[in-house]
Amino acid sequence: MDYLKKHPWKIIEEGFHPQYQRVSESLFSLGNGMMGHRANFEEDYSGDTLKGSYIAGIYYPDKTKVGWWKNGYPEYFAKVLNAPNWINIRCKVGELYLDLAKCEVEDFCRVLDMQHGILQRSFTAIFSDGKKLKVDTTRFCSIADSEVGAIRYAITPLNFSDDVVITLGVDANVFNQDANYNEQFWNEIYRDAKPGTALVTAETKKTLFHVCTAMTFEIVSGDKLFAGNPKSGGQELYAYNEIVLPLKKDVETIIYKYAVIQTSLNHPKEKLHNSSEEKLSQIKELGFDELIEKHRQLWLKKWESCDIVIDGDIGAQQGIRFNIFQLSQTYSGEDERLNIGPKGFTGEKYGGSTYWDTEAYCIPFYLGTAIPKIAKSLLIYRYRHLEKAIENAKKLGFRNGAALFPMVTMNGEECHNEWEITFEEIHRNGAIAFAIFDYVRYTEDKDYLVTHGLEVLIAISRFWCQRTSFSANKQMYVILGVTGPNEYENNVNNNWYTNYIAQWTLKYTIETIAFVKETDNTKYEQLVKKLKFDESAETKLWANVQKKMYLPSDKERKIFLQQDSFLDKELIKAETLKPEDRPLNQKWSWDRILRSCFIKQADVLQGLFFFEDNFSIEDIKRNFDFYEPMTVHESSLSPCVHSILAAKLGYRDRAYELYLRTSRLDLDNYNNDTEDGCHITSMAGTWMSVVKGFGGMRIKNNMLHFNTSIPTQWESYSFRVEFRGRVVELKVSKSKVEIIRIHGDNIQIMLNGEATTI
Amino acid sequence: MDYLKKHPWKIIEEGFHPQYQRVSESLFSLGNGMMGHRANFEEDYSGDTLKGSYIAGIYYPDKTKVGWWKNGYPEYFAKVLNAPNWINIRCKVGELYLDLAKCEVEDFCRVLDMQHGILQRSFTAIFSDGKKLKVDTTRFCSIADSEVGAIRYAITPLNFSDDVVITLGVDANVFNQDANYNEQFWNEIYRDAKPGTALVTAETKKTLFHVCTAMTFEIVSGDKLFAGNPKSGGQELYAYNEIVLPLKKDVETIIYKYAVIQTSLNHPKEKLHNSSEEKLSQIKELGFDELIEKHRQLWLKKWESCDIVIDGDIGAQQGIRFNIFQLSQTYSGEDERLNIGPKGFTGEKYGGSTYWDTEAYCIPFYLGTAIPKIAKSLLIYRYRHLEKAIENAKKLGFRNGAALFPMVTMNGEECHNEWEITFEEIHRNGAIAFAIFDYVRYTEDKDYLVTHGLEVLIAISRFWCQRTSFSANKQMYVILGVTGPNEYENNVNNNWYTNYIAQWTLKYTIETIAFVKETDNTKYEQLVKKLKFDESAETKLWANVQKKMYLPSDKERKIFLQQDSFLDKELIKAETLKPEDRPLNQKWSWDRILRSCFIKQADVLQGLFFFEDNFSIEDIKRNFDFYEPMTVHESSLSPCVHSILAAKLGYRDRAYELYLRTSRLDLDNYNNDTEDGCHITSMAGTWMSVVKGFGGMRIKNNMLHFNTSIPTQWESYSFRVEFRGRVVELKVSKSKVEIIRIHGDNIQIMLNGEATTI
Repeated sequence: MDYLKKHPWKIIEEGFHPQYQRVSESLFSLGNGMMGHRANFEEDYSGDTLKGSYIAGIYYPDKTKVGWWKNGYPEYFAKVLNAPNWINIRCKVGELYLDLAKCEVEDFCRVLDMQHGILQRSFTAIFSDGKKLKVDTTRFCSIADSEVGAIRYAITPLNFSDDVVITLGVDANVFNQDANYNEQFWNEIYRDAKPGTALVTAETKKTLFHVCTAMTFEIVSGDKLFAGNPKSGGQELYAYNEIVLPLKKDVETIIYKYAVIQTSLNHPKEKLHNSSEEKLSQIKELGFDELIEKHRQLWLKKWESCDIVIDGDIGAQQGIRFNIFQLSQTYSGEDERLNIGPKGFTGEKYGGSTYWDTEAYCIPFYLGTAIPKIAKSLLIYRYRHLEKAIENAKKLGFRNGAALFPMVTMNGEECHNEWEITFEEIHRNGAIAFAIFDYVRYTEDKDYLVTHGLEVLIAISRFWCQRTSFSANKQMYVILGVTGPNEYENNVNNNWYTNYIAQWTLKYTIETIAFVKETDNTKYEQLVKKLKFDESAETKLWANVQKKMYLPSDKERKIFLQQDSFLDKELIKAETLKPEDRPLNQKWSWDRILRSCFIKQADVLQGLFFFEDNFSIEDIKRNFDFYEPMTVHESSLSPCVHSILAAKLGYRDRAYELYLRTSRLDLDNYNNDTEDGCHITSMAGTWMSVVKGFGGMRIKNNMLHFNTSIPTQWESYSFRVEFRGRVVELKVSKSKVEIIRIHGDNIQIMLNGEATTI
Repeated sequence: MDYLKKHPWKIIEEGFHPQYQRVSESLFSLGNGMMGHRANFEEDYSGDTLKGSYIAGIYYPDKTKVGWWKNGYPEYFAKVLNAPNWINIRCKVGELYLDLAKCEVEDFCRVLDMQHGILQRSFTAIFSDGKKLKVDTTRFCSIADSEVGAIRYAITPLNFSDDVVITLGVDANVFNQDANYNEQFWNEIYRDAKPGTALVTAETKKTLFHVCTAMTFEIVSGDKLFAGNPKSGGQELYAYNEIVLPLKKDVETIIYKYAVIQTSLNHPKEKLHNSSEEKLSQIKELGFDELIEKHRQLWLKKWESCDIVIDGDIGAQQGIRFNIFQLSQTYSGEDERLNIGPKGFTGEKYGGSTYWDTEAYCIPFYLGTAIPKIAKSLLIYRYRHLEKAIENAKKLGFRNGAALFPMVTMNGEECHNEWEITFEEIHRNGAIAFAIFDYVRYTEDKDYLVTHGLEVLIAISRFWCQRTSFSANKQMYVILGVTGPNEYENNVNNNWYTNYIAQWTLKYTIETIAFVKETDNTKYEQLVKKLKFDESAETKLWANVQKKMYLPSDKERKIFLQQDSFLDKELIKAETLKPEDRPLNQKWSWDRILRSCFIKQADVLQGLFFFEDNFSIEDIKRNFDFYEPMTVHESSLSPCVHSILAAKLGYRDRAYELYLRTSRLDLDNYNNDTEDGCHITSMAGTWMSVVKGFGGMRIKNNMLHFNTSIPTQWESYSFRVEFRGRVVELKVSKSKVEIIRIHGDNIQIMLNGEATTI
């Protein structure tokens, strides 16, 4: 957006832009993997705003809202709740409340320091009675201790001396804007406010999670600790302290607000408020400066392994760091119960649920930028949902331990109700199998196959086998009635991507069975027993289905067909669409979209990206040349895959153009929806566009490969990747390509076709 | 249902069956084309009940409820409202209210006299204090004056003498059970209660229809008029009179309640209550006996032209008369603004809206049983919606006056939001064109083409032409992404039925243009101007599309294919389905239904039924033999079409079996949903099963044909049809077939292949 300044490490809003407040609230969001919030103001704000605080894993099963019920729809959807708010600092000067919607605002500046994970804001407010108050704020959610947040809120009267009343609260009286029936989801369990602290323990209805939100504070005025005489109080779901500050002209008073957020996910309910109070006094003891310093240091360390440096293109530099920053804020990999919601902690849209985005886009990012444990946690998350996935498949008529993982989920249960997606977008099962393969390929952690992987693979293969049917007509196995990654076609037959990944899963499962049997036969036998697995009969059937899987193609054009009937469509280039028709999903009725050739996101190309080693470069080129012109990229997950393939095919300009669409999607509010939150999961795709696209990183023959190219718009770029205990840095400039080992043992890699040991 | 007695002219419930009260309320419903109600009790009833009174054309646009919004969905749906209730007669004996859920009930008998359109009920209630009260009721909605209803409510104390308090009210404080957001839809406009009358004028929110419901009464005790001292009163939306009756043991007291229901559809709003009061005194003057006698006579007259007599099968006899009775109650054809809701006046399900059922099923019934004006009114109804249908098509991206009539409608606007139906079940447009053809074929009223028909046909042909696309692959015109009559397949390509009826419409429109030009060139030129019709260019394109329309078929089996991919399915006979899997739509998830071969209702066979003259008997036989075994008939509209074709093909047993499924669908509560109301529109299909099925009635070469057969279970059957000013009666017994002319000029007809003049 034009109102934001470009800077390599910062997002900067100079001057107050209330018309973009919701956009800014999304962009400047903070998080630490456990909790996070939109960049709402601490003080009251009566202007347009979307208030949002979120705690990972704290959800509520909201009653499904549906026009026409279909058998198999879930009765309830889990959604992450808008959680108790700990940031509010109400400020009353004379009779007037500080409220930027009601003051004149001067010298407003809001900065998200991505290098250190800190949100800062400064401004001077001119009240209607002429009083000028200067405000400086600094806020963070600690990554050193994810239950901790703190604010430094400094106020200076510029033209008056007067009493100012400060109210510091914790507020669990919060609502979800996306509640289906406008319900409140929180009950108060315990509330305590005494001079110096305020605390509310709230319980989510139905799911009965407890969240204790506690705060304390410290006030320093003109270098001296101000004791004051705090008045405590509260009401249902809200507790506070109120302090009267006798402010003096030009003297800065700093309010330090410390918060602890603990939940029953990690603490026994009965100890929650004691434990929170205890931690509260510990952090107050440490003080703001030490807390923030630890946090800063850890951010610097994070960047060491995940940063991407781009020279000569500040917009691209800011964009890629924004993507990496948000991903790192959203998921820390420390809790196997958690996953990555499409909006992270930046908004409530999509209910904070898990999509196949995690497997297809996010896992490669965490594999490349963090120790294997982080990506492994994401695999374990699905492993833990296996039983529910089997139940889910059962509801849809499958038997014998077949698993269909949900399209959208929080706790393993399906959280979506459009039949064409919920029931038919079954390719997600393939991505979950592929992620296991991808993880093992990258980390060489083959033990994972023994302990978890094979069990999931067998359940998925059982599903694929039952989901195919034999076409007497084609004398092949077909998969009827699916929606592929391109959601602009529904209920199609033989979606190439789905059929291919189903076929691949069956093959990989059979190979994995052989590997596990050989590696640890005892464990294998245990598994056979647990799953009532009839190896010989089941694998025989799988092998047959795999061998005779129908894969639609056009012999003449030598391309794979997105689905059986694709060539009956009128084939038109997306560039011929009128601007007023875009985006199609906002302008066209659904039937019109469905019968058009226009593709929402990579579909056949997604398959060629996953399985590129199985195809010649000519195959990839022909399919890219055929499908790219018809792709409208109306999913945030689309351009990155096309960009990577374009880079591979040497389409440098197209690769760069597609990269730009993804890297600054939110910063430039490309889809006009940043106000709802940032597109967190697609950010991983942006990272891949650089690392797998321009950097050409691949694992082939158990070795790290790079095949580099560089956009003409860039001077140079460099990034680091984690790989099997090493950190490796690739530097690519127009004139040369360098690779160095930053950390770990030396290793042989392939750089632009040549083997090198570094 | 077993609790009902079989009788040729009556539906009889002997003994009270509270467990089936909702079913009985549906089955015993009354209506007169303008208004109607479920068979709710007059007195209070605290047991399970669905209260429902309805007035044709009085609707409210309820806010759409949807899980996931799709572009093009309507924001509001019109639904017929539960209307003010005029039947209530509260009865208080001592301190106890008469309430069959709280009394012991003896000698209960409820009778729907279909021959005369009268609902009767008698019972003895034993109160908890031992008092016995005998009650006899008679109720009707007059077909002599459709704004009038009356009740004779006779009470006799059997073992006591005491004061009984009777409250006679009109109650507009009524709710729709299917309200999407639990709203009340009525506002009070005017209320008046004085000794002797009570009246409420209520207004529907948003649509602002006014409905005045007025009542008066007369009480006769032991043959003497009882004046009493009525106390009048009321509250928001409710007005009443209360009378204390000093009942004497064994003396019958009769309460006559007279009601007038007038609406702003037919009266100026400002005159509504005066006009209602005026009519009220007129009908009271006439008295109950005269009112009911007029009504009975008109019913007898109705039956003269529409009765079907079946000897030797009392269940079939009762069934067919129940179907004819309900259809006749629902629609009188006197108001071109009205149509036939799927539940008529028997329930609120499906919002009382118009479906393609009207054109495909109901019009043939009204053509065959009433003067042409009645069926014509139904055609005019669509003609009046043409502009809205053009708007509707525009919303979906069509241009140049193309019309898509809504799938479900009240006022011409779409009232449904499932994309696969709302946007894709476009074959409805074909049925609307076909109905014009069918009407003209039957009545020879070719002038209708000049005055209305062609305008509709051009708009529909414009739609078909734009909705087809040219497949480079097939070198033919295709129709992609539709749902055919078989709603168990969605978003399919080239549904044979849809493609065929589209092709037929184009051809018929071109022929009709030629006819209208020749008949009335002035009118034609006016139309050309009005529609900006470029005859030469448009018809040239239509002719080309028509000529090159793709019609999927299987060369090997020599059958038409329901859709392009039908043969990729596993072809399984419905009889192999396990009982626990039926009905599929309650047991299987939607994707499973979609990829199965099972057919909900006649699809290819529907086309062969409409256009049988274009196919050889062998064609019909091969398709019937292929599709019938896969058809699960989970639509009430399905068995009748199969029955007709089976009769034609000489499959006598199958024809009878399918006939039974349709004729006693509600009486036997076959789908376990009669409690929601009766399947009014499919009742017309039942009539067709006899008249077009066993009777083999057709119009061919501008002549009435019969090709008769008779089920082995029947001794004989006979029916009358209206045809071009004549009433003709066909009598078929096992040994002979007779045809006689009851009314009108003599006429040549074809009976079993022989021309006869009668």
